[in-house]
Amino acid sequence: MHRYRSHTCGALRSTDIGNNVRLSGWVHRVRDHGGLLFIDLRDHYGITQVVADPDSPAFKTAESVRSEWVIRIDGAVRQRPEGTVNADLPTGEIELFASEIEVLSQAKELPVPVFGEPDYPEDLRLQYRFLDLRRESLHALIMKRLQITRAIRQYMHEAGFNEFPTPILTASSPEGARDFLVPSRIHAGKFYALPQAPQIYKQLLMVSGFDRYFQIAPCFRDEDPRADRLPGEFYQLDVEMSFVTQDEIFSTMEPIITRVFEEFGKPIGKALKTTPWPRIPYDEAIAKYGSDKPDLRNPIEMADVTEQFRGSGFKIFAGMIDKDPKVRVWAIPAPGGGSRAFCDRMNAWAQGEGQPGLAYIFYRENEAAGPVGKNLGPERSEAIRTQLGLKEGDAVFFTAGNPARFYKFAGEARTRIGDELKLTDESKFAFAWIVDFPFYEWNEEEKKVDFSHNPFSMPQGGLEALQAAKSDEDFLKLKAHQYDIVCNGYELASGSVRNHRPDTMVKAFEVTGLTQADVEARFGGLYRAFQYGAPPHGGMAAGIERMVMLLTDSKNVREVAIFPMNQQAADLLMNAPSEAPPKHLRELHIRVVAPEKKD
Amino acid sequence: MHRYRSHTCGALRSTDIGNNVRLSGWVHRVRDHGGLLFIDLRDHYGITQVVADPDSPAFKTAESVRSEWVIRIDGAVRQRPEGTVNADLPTGEIELFASEIEVLSQAKELPVPVFGEPDYPEDLRLQYRFLDLRRESLHALIMKRLQITRAIRQYMHEAGFNEFPTPILTASSPEGARDFLVPSRIHAGKFYALPQAPQIYKQLLMVSGFDRYFQIAPCFRDEDPRADRLPGEFYQLDVEMSFVTQDEIFSTMEPIITRVFEEFGKPIGKALKTTPWPRIPYDEAIAKYGSDKPDLRNPIEMADVTEQFRGSGFKIFAGMIDKDPKVRVWAIPAPGGGSRAFCDRMNAWAQGEGQPGLAYIFYRENEAAGPVGKNLGPERSEAIRTQLGLKEGDAVFFTAGNPARFYKFAGEARTRIGDELKLTDESKFAFAWIVDFPFYEWNEEEKKVDFSHNPFSMPQGGLEALQAAKSDEDFLKLKAHQYDIVCNGYELASGSVRNHRPDTMVKAFEVTGLTQADVEARFGGLYRAFQYGAPPHGGMAAGIERMVMLLTDSKNVREVAIFPMNQQAADLLMNAPSEAPPKHLRELHIRVVAPEKKD
Repeated sequence: MHRYRSHTCGALRSTDIGNNVRLSGWVHRVRDHGGLLFIDLRDHYGITQVVADPDSPAFKTAESVRSEWVIRIDGAVRQRPEGTVNADLPTGEIELFASEIEVLSQAKELPVPVFGEPDYPEDLRLQYRFLDLRRESLHALIMKRLQITRAIRQYMHEAGFNEFPTPILTASSPEGARDFLVPSRIHAGKFYALPQAPQIYKQLLMVSGFDRYFQIAPCFRDEDPRADRLPGEFYQLDVEMSFVTQDEIFSTMEPIITRVFEEFGKPIGKALKTTPWPRIPYDEAIAKYGSDKPDLRNPIEMADVTEQFRGSGFKIFAGMIDKDPKVRVWAIPAPGGGSRAFCDRMNAWAQGEGQPGLAYIFYRENEAAGPVGKNLGPERSEAIRTQLGLKEGDAVFFTAGNPARFYKFAGEARTRIGDELKLTDESKFAFAWIVDFPFYEWNEEEKKVDFSHNPFSMPQGGLEALQAAKSDEDFLKLKAHQYDIVCNGYELASGSVRNHRPDTMVKAFEVTGLTQADVEARFGGLYRAFQYGAPPHGGMAAGIERMVMLLTDSKNVREVAIFPMNQQAADLLMNAPSEAPPKHLRELHIRVVAPEKKD
Repeated sequence: MHRYRSHTCGALRSTDIGNNVRLSGWVHRVRDHGGLLFIDLRDHYGITQVVADPDSPAFKTAESVRSEWVIRIDGAVRQRPEGTVNADLPTGEIELFASEIEVLSQAKELPVPVFGEPDYPEDLRLQYRFLDLRRESLHALIMKRLQITRAIRQYMHEAGFNEFPTPILTASSPEGARDFLVPSRIHAGKFYALPQAPQIYKQLLMVSGFDRYFQIAPCFRDEDPRADRLPGEFYQLDVEMSFVTQDEIFSTMEPIITRVFEEFGKPIGKALKTTPWPRIPYDEAIAKYGSDKPDLRNPIEMADVTEQFRGSGFKIFAGMIDKDPKVRVWAIPAPGGGSRAFCDRMNAWAQGEGQPGLAYIFYRENEAAGPVGKNLGPERSEAIRTQLGLKEGDAVFFTAGNPARFYKFAGEARTRIGDELKLTDESKFAFAWIVDFPFYEWNEEEKKVDFSHNPFSMPQGGLEALQAAKSDEDFLKLKAHQYDIVCNGYELASGSVRNHRPDTMVKAFEVTGLTQADVEARFGGLYRAFQYGAPPHGGMAAGIERMVMLLTDSKNVREVAIFPMNQQAADLLMNAPSEAPPKHLRELHIRVVAPEKKD
């Protein structure tokens, strides 16, 4: 017989009754039922109930074992007595009658229990992550993550992609977040950088003629702690394709993501809200949802009702509209929110958010109630009701001003209303492509036009469009072949058709104040590559942890990482980061500088 | 029609004749055949011949295109004229008669040509890696690498393993090679380290109850440049299993590696020499092959012939044997090497290697020729011939002394003889498990017993064996549950059954002079984990690049990396490492120290 096991702890069934078997695993729980000892033995595959009887030679050892000891048990499989069958357990029809128990290793008293789902401080859990990972729920969640990654790999291969590993010790890229640096020993005073994303390498692969690239790629960003980001490192499904249009990227990736979410959504009772996914231009997303990552499970769509307020009796808005042509009034419908109590609660919330408040009308029987309705008069109030398709018992909130300044708040109000009124359908994954992102944006700090996302996208209309634009205003109107995948209010992926032409690249950077020499200095490898026959190409990158969070209903991105750092970017299990020996630092030609005292 | 292509350049067949199609790709080659222009258009999938005729509107553009421009071509598929069919090309029956050509991007004059297999300096190739990767042979080699990795993943999954990503920003491990360090911004004066291997994490995964781990894992070692190692980063097939014996690890992994080598060896005409693989104890490998990574394609097996020389007329050896009981004489048979010319050449080679020479006998008709044979006399010479199974026309070489000092040279002589006499069967992959490695070795520098490989292995006999050993000599006799996979003279993989018990771990370290406190300081995470129920476990790690080298007949490990650094650990394409902005270094609390001048 095998030294440790003939079966796993999840394998035995009633067809095994009568057989002598051997199991190994962890002591999940020990129960003493009037002399009889019951041990739930656990391994990766399941739990088997073991019985030790005082007459058995195994009994003495059984009495000594404690939670989380690792033991081997030999015994006979027998039917569980009537009334003790556990239908929830795959092995619930049988139990193992122990004849011999060997202790393979002991466990000290546990700082974090494994049995059950107790609530312990995160830092303690992370320090004893190896115990936390044994918990049924977390163990299953991590396995789900691995299965999701495996499925993605499989479907990408089926779609003709190949997985390319790209370098991790690479060059600093001056765009985006802060790089992690790695001092070079061989090249004194020089540093490698860990990749924030394999962006440049995947584009170089396209220039190298590899048609369809993907990678489950580790990415590194030295950012300040944020609740919704993993500190330090995270994974992306990174994708790039040659000779493609935006439409082809969509028609390639949408079925793959859809398949993953259908497959893994089903067990948690979730389905896709809409297939195919809607494609929403950026400007429309801002206008309807106040966000470029709208939660489309929330049915509320905002609308511009400026005309209803122009010259109206609601003097505050009417005055604003008269004074500044940029001023707009947006309406946020609140179906079912038609009570003064609810409207006042929302108004109070808005004030708590630092806003002057939220104007509202709520529609009662034959009445547009609330101060706005009164000042506006029944005709205009009714026109608004009709425009928004509202009925008795509904409400509508208003924000007025320059939409560029208030749209975010309007979006938050939309979310709040949806949540409060339970309009958001929690059983759905609501996907959309957000398209036509602006190519440039206004950098208020430096008073100049800047790239709004990344500088690698192709502007819509290409070089001609760049050349035709004459003013900052013209540039700010340009759209990019740039898009996001959003799902349930999260940005799941981001991508673009790339700018593959060196002349267009130089012109695009010129607008932001960078010269050709700057482009060569900052993106030398890619710029050089584009001189030697670059194919049109494009792609995207999707956050693996975000997908896993959505597919496991997790609240915290650190839950879905296997060995996460804490929010201060420290690995409490391995004690990293830690001090380095002076000799090692000398070899790396660096010295630690004592932190300056802060006053 | 699609913006760029209706087919790839590898797709068209005679069944497409008459259709109007669209292709995009790189201009591989342009030929002018008396007015007619032929363009070989290349993409990832293949090459299609395009014809442009002076009457076609595409002709003018066709005349302007140069090597490696990216173009789109519309045209009609037609049969190639009789006599011009190219049977070597999947698209060789057809050609595309161009009606329209669009230049998608141009290429400057190429610093490294793509067409053909020209020999250019490696640094230039690496600087223009995107061009080098377009070359047919390198492109195919990289694709093979990806296919091999994919197959490995597939087979590991089929064997019940799951792929776990482990952290890349982690703690420094004081064993093994030099770590790359990453300064922490948030924790002033502290450093992360990049993992030399996920050794500790994979063991922690076993302690966490995940039964079967694997990962195609990036590993980082800051080593001095070596021809057979990738500078900086490389990949391992990293494997760990719980509740296993050494035999089960072998019976799990041997079929997987065998399958990969059978599948990918076939297209290059190579097969496995022996299945199942022989299992050779370390001591036997040293004695027979003079190496713990013997090339078993070479049939030569060495033998101890000390007794034939004891008290013999070959006074040098006889004297050495008398003087020192450690002295042994090893014979290296050379089948077919029985000529004075060959024996003298080997002798000269040995002297070139700094050895006093190689004694030899060569067997002619009824004669053991050469000085050794003469001094030894016909009886002893004949006994040696019989012991080694040699015949007329063969030779045998001898080394004498303390085998611990000469075995490496003997092994090199064995390799040399095998190569010179063409005994090594180049059409085979000769695998073996090398088993029973010594647990400890003598550290001559520090005059103490030290771990011979890694400190995580279980000594054979466990704690009892460690307790029973009393002297350094006893400790040095202990074997470990440690093994290598060797193939064709390369160490392909290394592994062990781990020491999962904290008491055994502490005792094993004690022997090397480390206290329990040292163990806790150096391996805190793992040592802590072992206190809380660790399963018996073991595994291995196999070099991906080594495997790919063997399976692609590559001579240089940098060939099989996609974007390798050069031998000075510099990425010439991306210009890494490079200087970092002082502001960034301040944020990281470090300063560059000017290198000390060397006298």
